[in-house]
Amino acid sequence: MANKIAIAIHGGAGTILRSNMTPELQEAYEAGLKSALDAGYKILESGGTSIDAVEAAVKSLEDFPMFNAGRGAVFNHEGKHEMDAAIMYGKNMMAGAVSNITGVKNPVSLAKTIMQQSEHVMLSGEGALSFAKEKGLAFEDEEYFFTEQRYIQWQEALKDDRIQLDHTEKKFGTVGAVALDMHGDLAAATSTGGMTNKKYSRIGDSPIIGAGTYANNNTCAISCTGHGEYFIRSVVAHDISCLMEYAGKSLREATDLVVMDKLVKTGGEGGLVAVDRHGNIAMLFNSEGMYRACRNASGLNEIKIYKD
Amino acid sequence: MANKIAIAIHGGAGTILRSNMTPELQEAYEAGLKSALDAGYKILESGGTSIDAVEAAVKSLEDFPMFNAGRGAVFNHEGKHEMDAAIMYGKNMMAGAVSNITGVKNPVSLAKTIMQQSEHVMLSGEGALSFAKEKGLAFEDEEYFFTEQRYIQWQEALKDDRIQLDHTEKKFGTVGAVALDMHGDLAAATSTGGMTNKKYSRIGDSPIIGAGTYANNNTCAISCTGHGEYFIRSVVAHDISCLMEYAGKSLREATDLVVMDKLVKTGGEGGLVAVDRHGNIAMLFNSEGMYRACRNASGLNEIKIYKD
Repeated sequence: MANKIAIAIHGGAGTILRSNMTPELQEAYEAGLKSALDAGYKILESGGTSIDAVEAAVKSLEDFPMFNAGRGAVFNHEGKHEMDAAIMYGKNMMAGAVSNITGVKNPVSLAKTIMQQSEHVMLSGEGALSFAKEKGLAFEDEEYFFTEQRYIQWQEALKDDRIQLDHTEKKFGTVGAVALDMHGDLAAATSTGGMTNKKYSRIGDSPIIGAGTYANNNTCAISCTGHGEYFIRSVVAHDISCLMEYAGKSLREATDLVVMDKLVKTGGEGGLVAVDRHGNIAMLFNSEGMYRACRNASGLNEIKIYKD
Repeated sequence: MANKIAIAIHGGAGTILRSNMTPELQEAYEAGLKSALDAGYKILESGGTSIDAVEAAVKSLEDFPMFNAGRGAVFNHEGKHEMDAAIMYGKNMMAGAVSNITGVKNPVSLAKTIMQQSEHVMLSGEGALSFAKEKGLAFEDEEYFFTEQRYIQWQEALKDDRIQLDHTEKKFGTVGAVALDMHGDLAAATSTGGMTNKKYSRIGDSPIIGAGTYANNNTCAISCTGHGEYFIRSVVAHDISCLMEYAGKSLREATDLVVMDKLVKTGGEGGLVAVDRHGNIAMLFNSEGMYRACRNASGLNEIKIYKD
């Protein structure tokens, strides 16, 4: 099994255009992806678990201010950074999720703590923050989450009274990771700051087990990024797992069908990263681009943004 | 199609024992179920939609103080009635869900309003309440939600610092309805007050599309009641739909497999009501009992609590 370790990560999908990208910006995004990939892969390589690997990769993406999660989270309508995250372990089907939290440095670690140290799967808002404080999770003040680019985006969205997906371009700001460890166990994790200027404490697909995040040792581990409402209604991650388990599809066939056909028909824009129990990796999206990267023990090592 | 209309409802599953039941109590529960069944069936019979029928049935169950939803919702740790609900329409796969709300008279109607009048699927907490106020949903004060029995349960749970599923017996307090209308469209709705003395704004399976609530015209409509964490991890409602769609199982086979085998193996106690696109009804549970009722155009008309 040792040669089967594999990891794939994403930093969000959407209308990512070469015309809006400078070489410096592209280099910075790629460096952010590489750091996260390194953080996760190092754990897999040294015999660690997939659940620790996806947490480490997502923490790294959360700490990187250019992705919409953790430190780079967008502003909601009230000017707060309201974040969601989820994690799932295919080995025992345990899961943890958190929605509508502010101030927690690494929402993915709170999701993991909920999975490991509570009898619940999903906590939210003030209640989740009480739990985080009891368990000693790290908090940061408003200044830590403040980035000038996000502030400008929010001010512009406020002016027009529109909900903004992420950037000035149409981008689904989410980060995520999936991994297979040398013990043969799969895991998935996803984290997001949601939509700029979002109202009503909207919850997207990221913290919904089965929609944006899912892992099952019988099939695959999946982390999604996209227009969350469509991913929730289609129960995207679990649908792919069921197509593998009940319809005998391969990971490639199942992800192709769901992302490039079923989601497109409903108007659901976005993508996902996935890994199956054999170490096969899929990184698919029906949008212009997706920040993504993957690595395995057979020498695969990719960092990509556009379709080609 | 007109003779295929069907509805099934539940008022929660769990350790419901004959030894704790008086004839008066049983009569009251059955009257509550009958009112809800009547409210939903009347709409189906007059050519109305399944989405209106499940909303009407669940509203009736929410208004009935003996079930743990709406008026009969249990007290959380802070002494509040924190409620969740979801609704889904198999015709267009649209869905609405709400979590951690207080004061809304009929959470199921808020879920339906989110589905019909917002671009989102899931709203929560204060944000959801702002939306509800903007849309003119009915609110009630604390007194409306106060029932002496729930207060006593909460005080007892506080004393022992334990989370209580619902009653003094182990009961999963949730209400729900599924329906097939004469247009051939399926719908499902679920509503709950959660667990007595629950902390941390825990979210159960009821408002999670795919877990506690799901409807798809290709397969079935499902509303669950049970130990929510297990239902979330197993994506119960969507799993049944996938077993029908991808593995060719009938509604009976799929619900049997998931409730009586797969859930039992994980330790997940509870049950569900389901209806498929042919009007077949399933009402299953792996616990001692489940408050349930169903009716169709072929003369089926049942109100039951125990296994037999």
